[in-house]
Amino acid sequence: MNKQSKGADIGVYGLGTMGSALALNLADSGFDVAVSNREANWIDDFIKEAGPLAKRLTGQADLADFVAAIARPRSILFMIPSGAPMDAMIEAIRPHLEEGDTIIDGGNANFNDTRRRSADLVGTGLHFVGMGVSGGEEGARHGPSMMVGGTDHSWTSLRPMAEAIAAKFKGEPCVAHLGPDGAGHFVKTVHNGIEYADMQMIAEIYGLLRDAGGQSAPQIGALFEGWTDGPLSSYLIEVSAAALLSIDSKTGQPMVDVIRDQAGQKGTGRWTLIEALKMGQSANTIEAAVGARGWSSEKDTRVMAEPLLAAGTLAADMPSDADLEQAMLAGRILAHAQGFRILWAASDEFDWSLDMARISEIWRAGCIIRSALLDEFADAFRGDLPAEHLILAPAMRARLEVSVQALRRVLSAAIAQGVAMPALSASLAWYDTMRRGRGTANLIQAQRDFFGAHGFDRTDEDGKFHGDWNAL
Amino acid sequence: MNKQSKGADIGVYGLGTMGSALALNLADSGFDVAVSNREANWIDDFIKEAGPLAKRLTGQADLADFVAAIARPRSILFMIPSGAPMDAMIEAIRPHLEEGDTIIDGGNANFNDTRRRSADLVGTGLHFVGMGVSGGEEGARHGPSMMVGGTDHSWTSLRPMAEAIAAKFKGEPCVAHLGPDGAGHFVKTVHNGIEYADMQMIAEIYGLLRDAGGQSAPQIGALFEGWTDGPLSSYLIEVSAAALLSIDSKTGQPMVDVIRDQAGQKGTGRWTLIEALKMGQSANTIEAAVGARGWSSEKDTRVMAEPLLAAGTLAADMPSDADLEQAMLAGRILAHAQGFRILWAASDEFDWSLDMARISEIWRAGCIIRSALLDEFADAFRGDLPAEHLILAPAMRARLEVSVQALRRVLSAAIAQGVAMPALSASLAWYDTMRRGRGTANLIQAQRDFFGAHGFDRTDEDGKFHGDWNAL
Repeated sequence: MNKQSKGADIGVYGLGTMGSALALNLADSGFDVAVSNREANWIDDFIKEAGPLAKRLTGQADLADFVAAIARPRSILFMIPSGAPMDAMIEAIRPHLEEGDTIIDGGNANFNDTRRRSADLVGTGLHFVGMGVSGGEEGARHGPSMMVGGTDHSWTSLRPMAEAIAAKFKGEPCVAHLGPDGAGHFVKTVHNGIEYADMQMIAEIYGLLRDAGGQSAPQIGALFEGWTDGPLSSYLIEVSAAALLSIDSKTGQPMVDVIRDQAGQKGTGRWTLIEALKMGQSANTIEAAVGARGWSSEKDTRVMAEPLLAAGTLAADMPSDADLEQAMLAGRILAHAQGFRILWAASDEFDWSLDMARISEIWRAGCIIRSALLDEFADAFRGDLPAEHLILAPAMRARLEVSVQALRRVLSAAIAQGVAMPALSASLAWYDTMRRGRGTANLIQAQRDFFGAHGFDRTDEDGKFHGDWNAL
Repeated sequence: MNKQSKGADIGVYGLGTMGSALALNLADSGFDVAVSNREANWIDDFIKEAGPLAKRLTGQADLADFVAAIARPRSILFMIPSGAPMDAMIEAIRPHLEEGDTIIDGGNANFNDTRRRSADLVGTGLHFVGMGVSGGEEGARHGPSMMVGGTDHSWTSLRPMAEAIAAKFKGEPCVAHLGPDGAGHFVKTVHNGIEYADMQMIAEIYGLLRDAGGQSAPQIGALFEGWTDGPLSSYLIEVSAAALLSIDSKTGQPMVDVIRDQAGQKGTGRWTLIEALKMGQSANTIEAAVGARGWSSEKDTRVMAEPLLAAGTLAADMPSDADLEQAMLAGRILAHAQGFRILWAASDEFDWSLDMARISEIWRAGCIIRSALLDEFADAFRGDLPAEHLILAPAMRARLEVSVQALRRVLSAAIAQGVAMPALSASLAWYDTMRRGRGTANLIQAQRDFFGAHGFDRTDEDGKFHGDWNAL
């Protein structure tokens, strides 16, 4: 490890669910770990419960002692709430650190904060890493996917440990140094946006089968279980199938039937959209998924509205199971493509040189959106890719040629029968927009020039023009 | 006017398109106006070209002279670029102002800036007004709609002038003091978001008729012209009809056919979305409209994509003209309802007590989104309104009962035939979400608890629970 002093290989501060799991994962991988925590009594409890791994763990309540227990140059991983607590932590620990030490923020930080914190440490001899960690508690303990942003110096120290604890896809560790400062946290943010979209599209298909198809949760779960071997093979389809098949021990009902339909959200879905908007991008499938969570929280309004608002539905056949599978596939490809468009835009904006193939690769295992498709995406990004646009890769075009038609059938059925599919319809609207060379914004430009004299470009001549408008 | 000194009734700084028009409108209404401008030579030119109105105009290049020419307490309207130029202007003019004077920003400012600027002046004896002005040059000259945020003191001075120059709806001036600080600019921002949505939905219907219906621009223009007398009666339908019927003098082709399909945008559409997201709101129809403008600018990618991406279309009948009219009506009601939801949220967040009926009223004339519907909205907001939700007003429910079914037919045709309708499909997805008491977020909560132990609420018991999950 080329460490210049004796001591632990790494420090982990913050022994909540994720911090504890990562500390144990590090110890399990043969690293000596110094741990600390704001509530000092958690430290001894944690080490006691670590069993045979306790021999690789040392705990210190005092910050100076904690830092002193780590070999230089130090890598210290913080798993604490993002925002103000992280800023306070940096202030508190800085006086104890020495040149070459690295502060690693493994929380779900806003990448703007990560950029600011990195910039603040430039010239101090200290380094900052923003590391997105995906996979939940289980992933953190036995193999997460990790997205690292920071300096080369920090990566050199962190790399052997990160690669050891990361999830493996066919032996390859699902962690990479993606770029400087906020790159890792930004990629994690977009990962979460894609996760929102995938979960929402699955829920939409569930809704169609439940509300228009009259199917029970176990019936739908069985259908989804059948998809785990096909092109939709993924953790989220597995989770959804398992959840739909699980029974509530208290009532004997399917678990999902006793859960209130009101979803929470943390900040990352919204951050994805706000950052996309700032860069002039729009990821309408992710927007729809974030929006649907917001609307779900308006439960009282919806209950009040149900008897008041007309359904106005039309007769329609239910789509086939095969169509539903293909529609979900189309939606999944399109949602990822939107996420990657945001990553391209950010890579340009912040000069990160993000490697989309590497990002696809480290998402193939460990993280929530891991799926068979990500392996295809990695190949697509390494191959012939017109306009750097995932849906233009030959393999994706071939998939979409089949699946988009199924998506049309599914959406037609849902629209007729009054089942909301905001994310899947957003996906198709985007596809139908992007596959048409001549859109309809010429009319928008005409309107804007008509009432606001904004001017427009012509198709047949360079320059800025105004129209020969006649009132009605 | 209760002015304490002699001089002009108001100052107007910034003689661009909008500032000039407002200054002439004020003079035309009998007010004495002091004008100034950064480029001093514009001042004399402006007064010379004012013809008989010149007698009510005085021009001063020097800032101190300009201020001195205005009667106290002064109202000074700035029509200059928003952002840094406005901050610089405030710094420059402050030393010349006296207690009770008001700085009015009539530009398209971000309401966050307006709040900051208002707060900065608290305790100085100076006042700040953020005033949204809609209607373009024509509106500014002959009657704009104006949305005012600021102190009561400022409104007392400004009111007679604002009411005199405002557009009139059945004699009532389309201007109101909507709340303190950023209230006026925020309402204007949401107005623009609704404007984006309305323009986009019109363009989507145009696209369906052009690309699936094979109709020419004049044919579509004639259809829209027929709508100007019905429930869609509005400025934007008139503009669209007139634009589609206008002929390019250079080529003899319909004007819209020679316009490049690449739309520009200023900040207000995006601001609407960002502020909505920050408040946990989602206005997916406005999101779609903003997104569509962004995608239109990816012209080169779309041209490259067209021959590569499969259409995968299905046979479908074209909807009737009556269905198209009703679909647009449904979309327009739903887009406005989303805009008003954002206004409610902001009113709560910033404690503005916004009056939605008054806002509807001042949008009935002068502004870009003026329409027959706004008069119905004003009545709806003054009447029985469950959950303060526009679509639950009896008159709106009656309209939606007819129009939503037409919207389903139009969207089914568009989806089958491969015509993108992002904004109209977003509207329907939102409607179908909000009219269902039991949604699908129970599955989202199951997924989140399964992989992240986030917990959920039950339908049959209070408290926070975790599921009895079984893996597959």
